[in-house]
Amino acid sequence: MVELRALVISKPFEAYIKDVDDPKPGVGEVLVSVKACGVCGTDIHIFRGEESRVSYPIVPGHEFSGVVDDVGGNVSDVSVGDSVVVDPNVFCGECYYCRRGYSNYCERWEGIGVTRDGGMAEKVVVPAKAVYRIPKDISFDVAALAEPISCILHGIDLVSPYNAHSIAIFGAGPIGLIFLILLKRFTSAKIAVFEVAKHRIDIAKDIGADVVENPLNVDIAKIANEVSDGRGFDMVIDASGNIDAISRILKLDFIAPKGKILLFGVAPPNKKVEIEPHQIYRKEVKIIGSYVNPYTMYRAIDVLKSMKEFNKIIDRIDLEEALNILKGESRKQYIKPVIVF
Amino acid sequence: MVELRALVISKPFEAYIKDVDDPKPGVGEVLVSVKACGVCGTDIHIFRGEESRVSYPIVPGHEFSGVVDDVGGNVSDVSVGDSVVVDPNVFCGECYYCRRGYSNYCERWEGIGVTRDGGMAEKVVVPAKAVYRIPKDISFDVAALAEPISCILHGIDLVSPYNAHSIAIFGAGPIGLIFLILLKRFTSAKIAVFEVAKHRIDIAKDIGADVVENPLNVDIAKIANEVSDGRGFDMVIDASGNIDAISRILKLDFIAPKGKILLFGVAPPNKKVEIEPHQIYRKEVKIIGSYVNPYTMYRAIDVLKSMKEFNKIIDRIDLEEALNILKGESRKQYIKPVIVF
Amino acid sequence: MVELRALVISKPFEAYIKDVDDPKPGVGEVLVSVKACGVCGTDIHIFRGEESRVSYPIVPGHEFSGVVDDVGGNVSDVSVGDSVVVDPNVFCGECYYCRRGYSNYCERWEGIGVTRDGGMAEKVVVPAKAVYRIPKDISFDVAALAEPISCILHGIDLVSPYNAHSIAIFGAGPIGLIFLILLKRFTSAKIAVFEVAKHRIDIAKDIGADVVENPLNVDIAKIANEVSDGRGFDMVIDASGNIDAISRILKLDFIAPKGKILLFGVAPPNKKVEIEPHQIYRKEVKIIGSYVNPYTMYRAIDVLKSMKEFNKIIDRIDLEEALNILKGESRKQYIKPVIVF
Amino acid sequence: MVELRALVISKPFEAYIKDVDDPKPGVGEVLVSVKACGVCGTDIHIFRGEESRVSYPIVPGHEFSGVVDDVGGNVSDVSVGDSVVVDPNVFCGECYYCRRGYSNYCERWEGIGVTRDGGMAEKVVVPAKAVYRIPKDISFDVAALAEPISCILHGIDLVSPYNAHSIAIFGAGPIGLIFLILLKRFTSAKIAVFEVAKHRIDIAKDIGADVVENPLNVDIAKIANEVSDGRGFDMVIDASGNIDAISRILKLDFIAPKGKILLFGVAPPNKKVEIEPHQIYRKEVKIIGSYVNPYTMYRAIDVLKSMKEFNKIIDRIDLEEALNILKGESRKQYIKPVIVF
Repeated sequence: MVELRALVISKPFEAYIKDVDDPKPGVGEVLVSVKACGVCGTDIHIFRGEESRVSYPIVPGHEFSGVVDDVGGNVSDVSVGDSVVVDPNVFCGECYYCRRGYSNYCERWEGIGVTRDGGMAEKVVVPAKAVYRIPKDISFDVAALAEPISCILHGIDLVSPYNAHSIAIFGAGPIGLIFLILLKRFTSAKIAVFEVAKHRIDIAKDIGADVVENPLNVDIAKIANEVSDGRGFDMVIDASGNIDAISRILKLDFIAPKGKILLFGVAPPNKKVEIEPHQIYRKEVKIIGSYVNPYTMYRAIDVLKSMKEFNKIIDRIDLEEALNILKGESRKQYIKPVIVF
Repeated sequence: MVELRALVISKPFEAYIKDVDDPKPGVGEVLVSVKACGVCGTDIHIFRGEESRVSYPIVPGHEFSGVVDDVGGNVSDVSVGDSVVVDPNVFCGECYYCRRGYSNYCERWEGIGVTRDGGMAEKVVVPAKAVYRIPKDISFDVAALAEPISCILHGIDLVSPYNAHSIAIFGAGPIGLIFLILLKRFTSAKIAVFEVAKHRIDIAKDIGADVVENPLNVDIAKIANEVSDGRGFDMVIDASGNIDAISRILKLDFIAPKGKILLFGVAPPNKKVEIEPHQIYRKEVKIIGSYVNPYTMYRAIDVLKSMKEFNKIIDRIDLEEALNILKGESRKQYIKPVIVF
Repeated sequence: MVELRALVISKPFEAYIKDVDDPKPGVGEVLVSVKACGVCGTDIHIFRGEESRVSYPIVPGHEFSGVVDDVGGNVSDVSVGDSVVVDPNVFCGECYYCRRGYSNYCERWEGIGVTRDGGMAEKVVVPAKAVYRIPKDISFDVAALAEPISCILHGIDLVSPYNAHSIAIFGAGPIGLIFLILLKRFTSAKIAVFEVAKHRIDIAKDIGADVVENPLNVDIAKIANEVSDGRGFDMVIDASGNIDAISRILKLDFIAPKGKILLFGVAPPNKKVEIEPHQIYRKEVKIIGSYVNPYTMYRAIDVLKSMKEFNKIIDRIDLEEALNILKGESRKQYIKPVIVF
Repeated sequence: MVELRALVISKPFEAYIKDVDDPKPGVGEVLVSVKACGVCGTDIHIFRGEESRVSYPIVPGHEFSGVVDDVGGNVSDVSVGDSVVVDPNVFCGECYYCRRGYSNYCERWEGIGVTRDGGMAEKVVVPAKAVYRIPKDISFDVAALAEPISCILHGIDLVSPYNAHSIAIFGAGPIGLIFLILLKRFTSAKIAVFEVAKHRIDIAKDIGADVVENPLNVDIAKIANEVSDGRGFDMVIDASGNIDAISRILKLDFIAPKGKILLFGVAPPNKKVEIEPHQIYRKEVKIIGSYVNPYTMYRAIDVLKSMKEFNKIIDRIDLEEALNILKGESRKQYIKPVIVF
């Protein structure tokens, strides 16, 4: 039996890399030889015991690509040797929410890398229905972005930005930068990015944001006026999850009439901000939350096929460095760290 | 020359009824002999000097019906003798917002009863494009509701309630009750109404609300659970404009995943409430403001043709009593006071 | 072992009622004691060998309600004694279409009553995920309409009729009459029904259609003009599947600018009609097909809870009479024949 | 008084270039010094007497850009010296369709270049509300495309292509190529173009179509299968107006389940094609017409600001050559002929 390396979080604040047994796929399952796996904020939350749905020990990693290594019974849509990405969100298809078409609220949701072992391992067994084939010419490290891209496409669907003349994105981490890449492509809007970190500001400029500013140094409403002929942003996206950024956005002073605000970043639970309901009414504002990725994985793969800019936001690391990141021992010089095997 | 009675607000906190000259319609204008005119909270704001767009002296009244008495030049869509309702919101059709299809944000908006004389008079001159013909068999007092109904239809369009299993309406004044009448008809949802005033509670029950409660006396979240099998309301509508009600709604504890919140009531400017952004994200909530009535007047007339319940919410008054209401001298025993001439 | 009566189609044009063994539910399955089962045109197609997906012998019946009699392993959402309706369309949740949210095009679709035994039997085993609980106060015969209602709600979603001033429905069989009941309730439009059969015309009038005409005796375009102030119907629904009716509709002479046409009735395969593309362009017509019922069963149950008119279209029959209907030995005096057990 | 050159169609089949008087703008009007004006199929229809709404003599030209030369009274949104494009579709804002938000069906529509003099002249007077300012850095010849782009954006809104994996465009004239440019940018779909003319095929390839084929030489259904993994195109756009192309599309054999067909090209009036209604039902096809450009001019200008490819489809000509084109004396070597002054 071959031994395989895996990053295991045994309990909150305890993690290590160890050799595990070669897993076998059961009926309706697939064994994936992982080629690349993104490290996400959720993985850090799991390390810190801040994600209540986890059952420890767990191999984290929910953004990954690889090659099908073996298939169990009753699997016909993928074959050994196929290049694939994995949708970590596994829906039951039988509960109230699944049967209303709201599968992101599945009552028996399973999360690969959250409730069952994920992609920070050389091999992992996943349900066949979580697996999507990709063309051979997409590199595995970029393909590891399929899941975050699919979530962002869902967010984009919820706000339908195609009519916007001006858009603001708060936060230029991996999520904000993917939003920037996609909205720069899919709309004709002027896009302003607000970010505090110097290296992220540089990448946002490189990707082509029309305006990039440090929100701590500027009068955001003034910039909104400049970008939008005095009318305010037609759309504002929070990709930071930062409560101060969200608080600033929800002052509603730089959103245009009929403007839409998308809260995509994961704000800290229980933190509250102030909002003036009269402004929501008077400007006909829409404030919209976006959660997970129902039905958008195929489109995420289309995006990966047709766009090249994602390479700019990826930092290739190894499993040891992923462990350092989880433990907070690695400085935040990365944009999107992706483990390559 | 005939003298005609009109209610005039000469300046904030000064109003009286006086005889005015018989007006003549100019080119593109119509003279309407007013038959019924609703009294709305905005009229009281105008009396109190709280509506900044008013130029005094002004005849208020923006919810009215009547008969065409005379037409000016270049008017071909209506004729003398036609029964009509008036849309008080007059759009320029030429500015940025009008040319984007967002006419409720017209940069040169005129409000009949706000920026120019309105319907609290025996006769009033209005632009021909503000006038909509109605069938003879709709009574004028009910027809005076066409404008608020058109605004509510716009709000309903913004939330698209047809998929909801359960809806809560906060406030059972005229607006809340019209929402109740329309949503009881146009959806199959269970509808809960929250209202403090006894006589309004009674009418909400009479109209057919599934649940009517005084929000000060009950645990709203518990009622939400009962109505919705523990999932929360799919839709919550604020029809109160009351900041405490809105604050309660925006706790987001009784809204279902993917739930929508419509802020329709006019909340007091500058008043703020707290909100937890994480809940917006986690439940994929949509919070939506609704303002004015673009493109919905014809449908409001269809509604008046096909539904009879509106009679239950109308209180017929005369011009003197309207003056009392503006001055705050009349007790709030009315649901929807409508002046009949 | 109890013997149970079932209607079996052994092969095309051969059917009989026989006693079968008491079935046992497997893992993830439920045994339903059928209380009512609608007879649908599809059942007749199956008898005649015109439905290619059938594997004979088959117990037909895909519109049924009943009581849970037994549950297999891993079933937690329903319990013995629950009143239920069954969604006969069973989706895999794993194929390309299911994973795009287009489950009505599931590549491994199973149809209860089509590819596996259905509801024309005293008892039937079905997957647990096909079963929806209903309140005890909905009668089983009306509840048997849940599936056609869910299909019609899907069709209504596809055309979003809420903005229509006038609607035409072609065909007043069970489908056309359910459309009439729902659209009369959910819209304020004037509704015209076109039907040739006298007893169906009478029921359409009784339900409240504004106009009911025999399309063979009238000038449809003239009626459209009368109903719509000369503009044409905003919406036309074919609920007949009759190729001549569809041909008449697709002349596009009585559809309004921006009008929508919903083809809901099952037109005969391979039959063609003529259409003038210039009219589609010039009037901005939308022609829309509707197929099956993704995600609408819960709403169908809400509809059954909140509306009473369905009783008018149901004809209660026994299993023998259902056999007569399949064999074409029963005259078409029924609106919607529903077997009651 | 300055004399100005204009192309005048005096009556069907009679046109010439002549000197006209310098026009003066009236109240609410603007004098535009035309810098570039596209020649469109409609202009040829006007020359041939095939456009019933024309009152001869007429200066054609409805796709033009220029500089504001003078403004009449009551004009505040534009000033002398502004660079502008003109929306030739002038809506009344007062009729039934305008007041439903369907301004493209305005009952008193005026067409600059159709019912009143247009842009094939050195100067033209237009209503102020038809004029949109553009930045100085957009060249006038490309800006002349604003109107066709706005129409195409309206068509794109009607089909919402953002979910499509594969799209086919029939016709690679100016309209088809603008669709190609926009959809290549705004979607991640694979795009196949079908065109018979060699020079248009070359430009479609140059712009980046994934597949370009002559529909007369290939099996379109086979190509659809190759592009779409055997499922058919998710979207098909007719940009040809060619009745044979539309007939081929409406066979519905290469459209995917839930596929959408946009009929954008102007098909010849009265020509009919065959269609099989069963396929519309069974595949849930949507067939959608698109007409004119309500509310999309500002977005067209955004498109012009953010994209450079339009230069590839423009052929600069003079007024004499425009006359030749109208008279059919110029061979069809042009893609989009644009008169530059």
